[in-house]
This record gives sequence, structure tokens and C-alpha cells, in this order.
Amino acid sequence: MNDSYALAVHGGAGTMRRGAMSAARAARYHAGLRRALQAGRDILAAGGGALDAVAAAVVALEDDKLFNAGRGAVFTTAGTQELDAAVMEGRERRAGAVAGILGPKNPVLAARAVMEHSPHVLLIGEGAAALCRKHGIAFAEPGYFRTPSRWRALREMLARRTRGLAGEGEDDDERRHGTVGAVARDRRGDLAAATSTGGITGKLPGRVGDSPIIGAGTYADNATCAVSATGDGEFFIRFGVAHEVAARIRHRSESLAQAAGTVIAELGRIGGSGGLVAVGRDGAPALPFNCSGMYRGYVEANGVVRTAIYDEPYRAG
Amino acid sequence: MNDSYALAVHGGAGTMRRGAMSAARAARYHAGLRRALQAGRDILAAGGGALDAVAAAVVALEDDKLFNAGRGAVFTTAGTQELDAAVMEGRERRAGAVAGILGPKNPVLAARAVMEHSPHVLLIGEGAAALCRKHGIAFAEPGYFRTPSRWRALREMLARRTRGLAGEGEDDDERRHGTVGAVARDRRGDLAAATSTGGITGKLPGRVGDSPIIGAGTYADNATCAVSATGDGEFFIRFGVAHEVAARIRHRSESLAQAAGTVIAELGRIGGSGGLVAVGRDGAPALPFNCSGMYRGYVEANGVVRTAIYDEPYRAG
Repeated sequence: MNDSYALAVHGGAGTMRRGAMSAARAARYHAGLRRALQAGRDILAAGGGALDAVAAAVVALEDDKLFNAGRGAVFTTAGTQELDAAVMEGRERRAGAVAGILGPKNPVLAARAVMEHSPHVLLIGEGAAALCRKHGIAFAEPGYFRTPSRWRALREMLARRTRGLAGEGEDDDERRHGTVGAVARDRRGDLAAATSTGGITGKLPGRVGDSPIIGAGTYADNATCAVSATGDGEFFIRFGVAHEVAARIRHRSESLAQAAGTVIAELGRIGGSGGLVAVGRDGAPALPFNCSGMYRGYVEANGVVRTAIYDEPYRAG
Repeated sequence: MNDSYALAVHGGAGTMRRGAMSAARAARYHAGLRRALQAGRDILAAGGGALDAVAAAVVALEDDKLFNAGRGAVFTTAGTQELDAAVMEGRERRAGAVAGILGPKNPVLAARAVMEHSPHVLLIGEGAAALCRKHGIAFAEPGYFRTPSRWRALREMLARRTRGLAGEGEDDDERRHGTVGAVARDRRGDLAAATSTGGITGKLPGRVGDSPIIGAGTYADNATCAVSATGDGEFFIRFGVAHEVAARIRHRSESLAQAAGTVIAELGRIGGSGGLVAVGRDGAPALPFNCSGMYRGYVEANGVVRTAIYDEPYRAG
């Protein structure tokens, strides 16, 4: 029996120009990823469950305004924030998700409440908020989620659209692909995945991406793997990316690395930009992406935390 | 080149006691299914597209108050109606879906509007309604969707819950599994799928089932099959039923009948009740279910329409 634990996280992927990011800013991303990995690792190392670990890691990323989830989420064209999140555990493949909410401080905990306190998998809008209130999930004031940099990103984008320059200058990776997520294997061999996002700057109100869609942005099955994705959400939904990785392992006996790498490469060939983090039954992580970077990290078997942004050597922390 | 067309529809599945349904009531279900099949068949026979055909078939079922979609949708615990729908076409695997809406007369056309008039796949609530208004989708007054029998079903269910009898007497198949859907192959070999539902009586407000979740209740890919499912929605989401049927064909080279039959049988073994309709690349239909009945039908190669409710010989119409 393999009783090692495993954990990987992402903080979004996209077209990231190295030159545009200062060393100080990169260091803040590394630090944010490290904090999330440490939060999850401490639970797993102590024999805690995979679901608790991914929830703790995602809470840390939601609380960090650098990442597009929870505090620091992006804005819709209407200037609102609408948050989505999902969790899934691999033993019974139970799942919970929320979409289009603003209220629960940590959307990932709202998703977990849906899984644990309702017969449903996905709750949207006010119905999700009502369930969270009933079960004591912490709320935050609307102002808590807003940050000046996300507001500026919306205004700049709307100005570009007004000038008919839609698409140009939109190489802000967080605008396009901001999402956070975590996958884990605990010492008992249980897998879990969690994903959380503010979506994309300038999305239509009511738009739901792949993050809260079980099988698209989030999936976990002890028999195969746990997956959390980030990228062009609509592509990830249409191609069922997270479920497809699991399906290739089950039906083709591919390794996790093969399956995850193939799916992300195929997606890239048809124009779907992004990546994912995954852990397999045996705990081996995979962190493929088909764009210039993905904020990401994992915990080594010895407990050392490793983080990276571009196609570059991982930093130990 | 196989230029034959194919079409199959369902109007929900569940635990249906034959004794509880009069011959007259059964005849109304057969007639409703026949109208939907004829609407789609006329388009396909004339060389029309699969997407147009599944939309026409689902519109016919939404307009029929016998079925739990559009007019005649069931009620939430709050006494509201919240409709979900999705469409997908198999050539480029484009998709559109709506959830938690009440306004557009035919939710399936709202889903199609999302696919054709937005960069998104899934829009919920007011955002979806706004897009529909902008693109001239027909709306109906709230009263249009309400029927006395659905209202009675909610009141009876709430009364049972009050008496602590949750679960008992709940063998009303429509309450549990009411959904409508259609799948088609047109003469050019393009596939499409569409699904629409009011959900389940007494669902929490904000609950979204599998119907509008691409890969769960709805999927289409010219390389494999088109699928529309009906059943315990949460199970269908967690197991990615529609995508799993396609995955088994792609990765294991199973026939559509094998893949669809296996997935529905496996789901039944773990307690997930329901069924699906599907057509494959070659146009062969499959209509498996693991419960006592599924309102369903298909069009034979000669254009004859066949419908059935239980595990019984199909009626030609």
C-alpha cells in the first residue's frame, strides 16, 4: 500500500510575457502558490483527507488578491463579480459546485456545502447563497472582493472594445485564464479536486465557465486521477477536458502524464489555450499547459514545495 | 457515403407503474412523442440540418404540457419554475446552454441563442434572458408555464415532507425524471443533441441538473455520437454520462449500442436511475434505460415513427 501523499495547485494559465513581469511581482506569485501548497501539505502530512487539503489550498488562493478567485475576482461587463467553484472527491465521486454567486467569502467552501448539505451537485445564484447561510458558511461584504487592479482591467477592456480593438492588447493572462485549483491524494489513497474562479474580465453577466462544471474543469475518481483545469473555459466544457483525462486512463490504460499531456496538446491544436494540474492513483502529479505559462506548484515526496510560472526550472521553497 | 437521416427523442424516464396509467393517458404521451418525431423528421427528410431537427423536436415537447420542460415544467420548493436547456452540434462541437431561466417560451431556443450569439457556452438566470431579448427570442408570460397538475405535485410533495414521509409515494416518474431531449443525424452526417427540463419537483431554488451540463446530459461529436439523457441528474453529472458514451466509442471502439447500454447499466448498479437516447455516426439509434420506463421514440429509415413507454413493443405511428 502506497501511503504517500501528493498535492498540486495552479493559479491560472495564459499568454504571459516574461518581460512584462517584474522579479518582485513574480516573487509574490511564487509566495502565494507556496502558501497554498503549505496549507494543503500540512493537512496531508498529518494524515488528513484529500478533500480537506484541496479546500485549504484553494482557500489560500481565494484569499490572495493576486489570483482571480474569491478576493480579487474579475468583473463582468456590468461591473459585477460572479464567482464559480467546485469540489469533487474520488472515493464515491461525490461533487458540489456553485456558480454566479457573490457573498460566501470562500466560494470553494460554498461548493463543499452543496456537496455535503444538499442532494444536489450544482446550485446557482441566490439558491446557493441561501444554502450557505443555512449552514453557517462565512460571508464577506461585496467590497471585500473588489480590487483596484481588476476594476482597472475592466475599464481598459471596455475602452478597447469601444475603440473597436477587441482582442488587441488582451494578453493579460489573468483576464483570460484566471482560475485557481488544487488536486490531492491523501495517505489513504483518496483523491480530491477543487477549482475556483471569478471567470474572465468582461464576461457577460450570467456566464459560467468550466470551473464549476464537473467533468470540464474539475474531476476526481480514485480509480484514475483528480484534475483541476484552467484556460479557455468554453473549450474545456465542449471537450469535457477533466473527464477526458480520466477516460483515457480508464479506457486506454494511459499513464496520467500521457493522458493529461495528450488532452492539453490536442486542445491547443484546435485553439483552446490553458492547462491543468492532476494527481494519479499513485500520487504522481502532472502539470501540463499549452500556453506560455501557468502559475503552478506541487509538493515533492519529501515535503519540499516547488513552484513555477513559465516553462522553467521549478523553484524550491 | 451514408446519406440516411436518423432521429430519436425522449420525454423523461422513471419508475412508472403501468397500472397507474390509463390507456387514454398513455395515448396522449405516444401522440406527443409522435408530434415531436414528425417535426424533426420533416426537417431531416427535406435535407435540413440535425441541429434544426433536434431543436424542432424539443420545441414540440416543450410546448406540450404533458412533459416537464417549457410549458408544464415542475416547481421548486419556493413555488418558482426554473428551466434548463442545452444544444450541441457535432461538427465543431459547438454548444450552448441556459440554466435557471423563466421567460423564453422555448428554453432550447435560448440555449441555441447562447451558442450562436455569444462567445460563451453556459449562461444562467438574468444574463441568459438579456441575451435572448437582444436576439429576438420569443418570451411568454410566467403564467404560460404553470399547469395545475404540476402545482398539485409540489403541494403533495411538500405535504409528504411535512409529515416526514419524504421519499414515500414519490413514484411519479415526471417528478423525479422529467426531461425531454432529441438526437439526430442529418443526411450530411452531422450530429446534434438537445435537452430541456424543468428539473425535479421540490428541488431547491438554484438547483441545476444534468440537462444543461455539456458532457453530462447532452453531448454531440460527429466522430462518435449524439446523446441526450434523462434521469437522476446528479448521478449523470458525477459520472459524465453523455461524454462517457462518446469516450467508450472513441477509446474502446465499442459500438454505440454497447457503449450506451454499458454506461446506463453501470449507472443503474450504483443507484442512478434513468436512460438516454443516442444516434451514432452511421445513424443507428440506441435508447437504453435502467428503470421501468422511458417515454421515447425514433424514426425508422423508411420514415415510420415508432414510440414506446415501457419495455414493450414499439407502436408505429
